Amino acid sequence: MQWYLVALLLTFLTSSQGILTTLSQSNGKYLYDYATVPFLAEVFKLVLSSLLFWRECQISPSTRMTTEWKSVRLYVVPSIIYLIHNNVQFATLTYLDTSTYQIMGNLKIVTTGILFRLFLRRRLSNLQWMAIILLAVGTTTSQVKGCGEASCDSLFSAPIQGYMLGAVSACLSALAGVYTEFLMKKNNDSLYWQNVQLYTFGSIFNMARLVLDDYRGGYENGSWWQRLFNGYSITTWMVVLNLGSTGLLVSWLMKYADNIVKVYATSMAMLLTMVWSVYLFSFKPTLQLFLGIIICMMSLHMYFAPPNMLLDLPPQVRAAPESLKEVTFERRADS
Amino acid sequence: MQWYLVALLLTFLTSSQGILTTLSQSNGKYLYDYATVPFLAEVFKLVLSSLLFWRECQISPSTRMTTEWKSVRLYVVPSIIYLIHNNVQFATLTYLDTSTYQIMGNLKIVTTGILFRLFLRRRLSNLQWMAIILLAVGTTTSQVKGCGEASCDSLFSAPIQGYMLGAVSACLSALAGVYTEFLMKKNNDSLYWQNVQLYTFGSIFNMARLVLDDYRGGYENGSWWQRLFNGYSITTWMVVLNLGSTGLLVSWLMKYADNIVKVYATSMAMLLTMVWSVYLFSFKPTLQLFLGIIICMMSLHMYFAPPNMLLDLPPQVRAAPESLKEVTFERRADS
Repeated sequence: MQWYLVALLLTFLTSSQGILTTLSQSNGKYLYDYATVPFLAEVFKLVLSSLLFWRECQISPSTRMTTEWKSVRLYVVPSIIYLIHNNVQFATLTYLDTSTYQIMGNLKIVTTGILFRLFLRRRLSNLQWMAIILLAVGTTTSQVKGCGEASCDSLFSAPIQGYMLGAVSACLSALAGVYTEFLMKKNNDSLYWQNVQLYTFGSIFNMARLVLDDYRGGYENGSWWQRLFNGYSITTWMVVLNLGSTGLLVSWLMKYADNIVKVYATSMAMLLTMVWSVYLFSFKPTLQLFLGIIICMMSLHMYFAPPNMLLDLPPQVRAAPESLKEVTFERRADS
Repeated sequence: MQWYLVALLLTFLTSSQGILTTLSQSNGKYLYDYATVPFLAEVFKLVLSSLLFWRECQISPSTRMTTEWKSVRLYVVPSIIYLIHNNVQFATLTYLDTSTYQIMGNLKIVTTGILFRLFLRRRLSNLQWMAIILLAVGTTTSQVKGCGEASCDSLFSAPIQGYMLGAVSACLSALAGVYTEFLMKKNNDSLYWQNVQLYTFGSIFNMARLVLDDYRGGYENGSWWQRLFNGYSITTWMVVLNLGSTGLLVSWLMKYADNIVKVYATSMAMLLTMVWSVYLFSFKPTLQLFLGIIICMMSLHMYFAPPNMLLDLPPQVRAAPESLKEVTFERRADS
């Protein structure tokens, strides 16, 4: 499988996630408990990865797996980071309105680039850094509030704590991604074995969250397992399968491609969702969406196109601007 | 003089043009006839160029000048193109509202790139084309109407003739620039001699326009020369001097740099004017202005930075994404 096909599939599935979630509502309300969806998606990923791992072991007895606790315990780290991230997210939203929060979310594109460089020691060219910044600028552009939209609060008027927490949130999100890439690439273990470890901890943490929510809510709606499939429609199951599948694709990309590929796929998906919304939910297409798409396409090309394709310039033309520097007013006046 | 210093000066002067024009008004009204300003600017350029040319001839008797009518007559062409352009502009505005017209104006960045390639046969790299498109996208982004602005007409709802005339206008504007560059570079004539020819025709055409306007208006406000300096303040004279100086700088750039440099200078000036307005006229800074500035800065760097600065990448890292293509799901399952 080529990495860009996986990235394309991830873009497509991620973009349909928002659409499916909207379609799974009845009259704008969830008839099911949305908090159960990520838990079921984790379980789905765990079951599928276990089956694939089992099949892999059957076919090739030399399947690589590290079972030392010293290695296994590392797979709990992403779950812990996501747990902290969720709480920071919650705190951030007490300071920022949702649209400022959404705009700040684009910062994770840049923080991913920075942590990718710092922790994974991957070098990026000047042009690739510019492409990453442009990707963040492009997604932000598409989200600029158009004229005629209801709320009109200034982006620059929230308390400073809000922006700081938003930045922390962007760093944590990037850290989770970069750490997962480190885990997946640190040895030649089978991808499925790595997934089994990742999703075992994922399932446990998601279950713990459901338990805790029940406890905090005083068991008002009963226990979580009692309402696990309550009100689930076909569309709800599609949301679960979709979330699970995108998770598996991301994990594949972390091992065989990298975080930047994932960031491009999810950013493009965000734009694609907006385009779909124009058709499906008759959203009004805005100039800023159009501009955002152009910027992100340029960024994509800048990041991934081979340098010789970008700079297919005959040498004499490149030399021209250099020679211009030599021309001076004084010299011309003297000649 | 180095071309980028001239470009910087042009950016600075062009950005102050809008500010000065606003400052030259009293309570939002012109106390003078604005149509006289471009005429006086042409005359200023003609007088200054004539003086400089005379001095140049004094210092160096070998100053180059072509005086054949076959060559001189070519200098009328830019004036004719501007004349047609003014009329097309007028027609365009009967179909498009001013803000849609302003947005469409950014198209001239791209048309300049295209005519630069077609008529002047200048090759641009893939990356430079992307930079030109990003410059147009960046200036457009900064002009996206924010929420809370008065008029909220859709950009996509004007009659098709409006967009077509807008496109024609962008082509004419680019054509004038590209043709002037061709004129200035076609031989080694003194820049001042070329200017004298250019501004003689410019002055004549501008005067003809004033005469025609008077005739059309039935001499209601008297003849143009009677109100030439009427209501002129110090600021009005600064507007004239500023307009004249930017014209001279553009002409210098056409001979010793090129149209793309000019397009960058004037685009950056547009953004700079908006930044100045935030301070001087307490405009509310918008997210789209901030994003537009980042995009245009990236574009500037992409277009002018030397390729080795943009692609300072160790070869092994560039190889990585290529090798990823070889990894397949099937192969891994089989191993």
